[in-house]
Amino acid sequence: MAKKTVKPEVLGGFIDILPREAIAQNALFSMISEAYEAFGFVPLDTPSMERVEVLTGGDDDFDKSIFVAKIVRGAEDRGSSYDFGEGESFGLRFDLTVPLARAFSAHSNDLPRPFKRYQIGKVFRGERQQKGRFREFYQCDFDIVGSDSTMADVEVIQVMEGVMTKLGFTEFVIRFNSRNILNGLAEVLGCGERSNEVFRIIDKLDKIGLDGVVTELQRKPDNEWDESALALSEEQADKVKAFLAIKPGDNDRTMSELKDFFKGQAGVCQKGIAELAYMIETLRAIGVDESHWSLDLSVARGLGYYTGPVFETVLTDKPELGSVFSGGRFDGLTNRFIPDSNIPAVGASVGLSRLMVAMKEKGLLPEKDNVTDVLVTVFPSAGQELLSAKTAKAIRDNGFNVELYYGQDNSLRAQFSYAAKRGIPYAVVIGPDEAKEGKLQLKDMNARNQEVLTMAEAIAKLKGSLGK
Amino acid sequence: MAKKTVKPEVLGGFIDILPREAIAQNALFSMISEAYEAFGFVPLDTPSMERVEVLTGGDDDFDKSIFVAKIVRGAEDRGSSYDFGEGESFGLRFDLTVPLARAFSAHSNDLPRPFKRYQIGKVFRGERQQKGRFREFYQCDFDIVGSDSTMADVEVIQVMEGVMTKLGFTEFVIRFNSRNILNGLAEVLGCGERSNEVFRIIDKLDKIGLDGVVTELQRKPDNEWDESALALSEEQADKVKAFLAIKPGDNDRTMSELKDFFKGQAGVCQKGIAELAYMIETLRAIGVDESHWSLDLSVARGLGYYTGPVFETVLTDKPELGSVFSGGRFDGLTNRFIPDSNIPAVGASVGLSRLMVAMKEKGLLPEKDNVTDVLVTVFPSAGQELLSAKTAKAIRDNGFNVELYYGQDNSLRAQFSYAAKRGIPYAVVIGPDEAKEGKLQLKDMNARNQEVLTMAEAIAKLKGSLGK
Repeated sequence: MAKKTVKPEVLGGFIDILPREAIAQNALFSMISEAYEAFGFVPLDTPSMERVEVLTGGDDDFDKSIFVAKIVRGAEDRGSSYDFGEGESFGLRFDLTVPLARAFSAHSNDLPRPFKRYQIGKVFRGERQQKGRFREFYQCDFDIVGSDSTMADVEVIQVMEGVMTKLGFTEFVIRFNSRNILNGLAEVLGCGERSNEVFRIIDKLDKIGLDGVVTELQRKPDNEWDESALALSEEQADKVKAFLAIKPGDNDRTMSELKDFFKGQAGVCQKGIAELAYMIETLRAIGVDESHWSLDLSVARGLGYYTGPVFETVLTDKPELGSVFSGGRFDGLTNRFIPDSNIPAVGASVGLSRLMVAMKEKGLLPEKDNVTDVLVTVFPSAGQELLSAKTAKAIRDNGFNVELYYGQDNSLRAQFSYAAKRGIPYAVVIGPDEAKEGKLQLKDMNARNQEVLTMAEAIAKLKGSLGK
Repeated sequence: MAKKTVKPEVLGGFIDILPREAIAQNALFSMISEAYEAFGFVPLDTPSMERVEVLTGGDDDFDKSIFVAKIVRGAEDRGSSYDFGEGESFGLRFDLTVPLARAFSAHSNDLPRPFKRYQIGKVFRGERQQKGRFREFYQCDFDIVGSDSTMADVEVIQVMEGVMTKLGFTEFVIRFNSRNILNGLAEVLGCGERSNEVFRIIDKLDKIGLDGVVTELQRKPDNEWDESALALSEEQADKVKAFLAIKPGDNDRTMSELKDFFKGQAGVCQKGIAELAYMIETLRAIGVDESHWSLDLSVARGLGYYTGPVFETVLTDKPELGSVFSGGRFDGLTNRFIPDSNIPAVGASVGLSRLMVAMKEKGLLPEKDNVTDVLVTVFPSAGQELLSAKTAKAIRDNGFNVELYYGQDNSLRAQFSYAAKRGIPYAVVIGPDEAKEGKLQLKDMNARNQEVLTMAEAIAKLKGSLGK
């Protein structure tokens, strides 16, 4: 076999998640799963690859960059690679929503309605190389498919609140609005057909301020192909100003100002008002802490596909991170697969990387390189390792994570240093003297003291100290 | 946007893991992780894609089929797809061992020695379409990198035993042997250079029997290019027969027959004998149940890269499944990346799909479509849903997984049927009468009876019944 030396490098845009990070990530995933399951959401696991047509929706205007794979046999022989037809165009998923829609469409007879599922998995984006942009990352979604009840929208807010609380956050607010309100505004402005452009600009409020929003709404086309310019009149711009002057804070006041704004106006805005009023009433009746949610008319969410309530979550002591948990209602989820099925759906997705940044700063995630409770050292004279191995098993059988030392340097000093460096809280020494008395030495690595104890005493001490 | 209807199909060789299966899979993964962590193994998470050269090792003879991806922008425009140079040849990993070797080589200064890691993740194989062959599946590996101590080999057996026991198996045996013994046999046969061919044939013993093995070892080349034929002589074949006549069962007898077989023979076989003798002595000293492990000289494991002890796990009541947990020592793990580094490594990988088949048959995995403890129904008259939503929150806040009903058909009959179909053990009814008295009706869906209880009484009953 002709072999050469290969550089041990990852691809650009990909990362190794080393144990310290992976331990924190596992803890995060398990807290999020528990919070989802508390509301009866069940896991679904779909393939990493889908037919390319499933990902693009057969949409000629599809403009995302995706990974498309083919099967290659052997190392270099790209010429003899299997080619794939339309049925075998392997595309790596770029989110978990399209796979949900595909799987729900395929298995709708076997799934309950509403179908409440969560999924934690890796997604792939064909981003151009850029600092801080990853081509593979985790998403963590939950969705309710098949219910158009506003109670489902309320539940999404409850689940988001449940997750944030479970993760240990106290200073956060889930801001919500409804696309029906924004569509009503577009109607008032007389530009209903271009409502998505209006939302896209309003969504920038946090970044460019009210003046910036107004300037952009009034911008005239640069040339005849400039379709993004809305060129709103002074009068139209004033209406947007009046709308955005309705500030969040006191939900009753916001609601009353909203009703005033749309007074005498029929149609979709009244649907939005009824929706939001019901959500506020229900959140209060259920007793969801009102400091954790807020009606906020500036919430638009950029994505075109939302059709009802939209949600985002801001850390009030770290607003600069932007939304850490966002979602909304998107009725029509499965229309790509089952035309005119108009299945209602509502859900949200955790912004994992932002959340992890915040949790690390607040000390809400474990910061440790190992999961070991006790290192059992091996006394550095011949034949002692059997005694140590037996002792390790006995402690492990009591429910602790126990490592037996078998590194190259077997001096006791090296063994203690191994435990200290890895942050292992306890070390056990068992030499011929201790063995003769049926005892062991338990060393508290943090307090830097040791006691000679029987096994039963050691287990009791570990249980008390480590809370197992 | 021009859109068309897309078939909601998965790609051939890929599957949706629906909730019933995903709940079982999550339970399995969490038990396996806990069993690995009990020995101090820590999680590592590497990218799904690696540089193609990393996967093939720059080996011209590399003959696996792998997925190679490129980035495509837009739906159809394959012409304008970004091309990738050698540095950006995205290859989907086909196992978790190559990524471990790559990651350990890249981060060796930041990782302890020994480095004990586990990884659970999806791997991708460019298999030709074939029933029961998947192109994406999970692997679940653990490895000890950087220790050549036989104590590490013993620990691998202990971990395997720990996992199998944690999963609820009692009827299993971890069979082990050493490549040093098989290399010794190849030396005795005088075909040391072709030892891998010898092992490959011996590995078929379970399938083709002793006669089949002997026939294949004696097979003469069909033509001048037939390199796999060993054409052993009668005398050589007799030696293999004598070797394979050493049966497993009583470890002391097997060991003594093994010593006799190699009597007077120096070299690698004596290293193997010392290794195996130490493993047996240590497993006994530690107290690992001897019905769960066995020295078995027929264990060869097909793969060429093992260099010391090899392990496989057979369910004694289902031997037809083959090995459900296999591994071995493969010193030289990182040589592809760091020439002559000769880092020792030993580990094993769970055969997940076989294991799941066995666990399902034995009832060792949850078989349920949901994780919900209680369904709170909504009394079908106006305005009752707020009371139900509040009740659901109160029960959930006590640590239970609680669903509020908001399906389309809101008759109580439909709501109970929803609970029954999904296997939810308890339903709560709270109507105006119960509310007035500050009580609720708790219905046991299995026993088909109900009681009117206070919230405190209901919580106490649920805690007792569901063990939370």
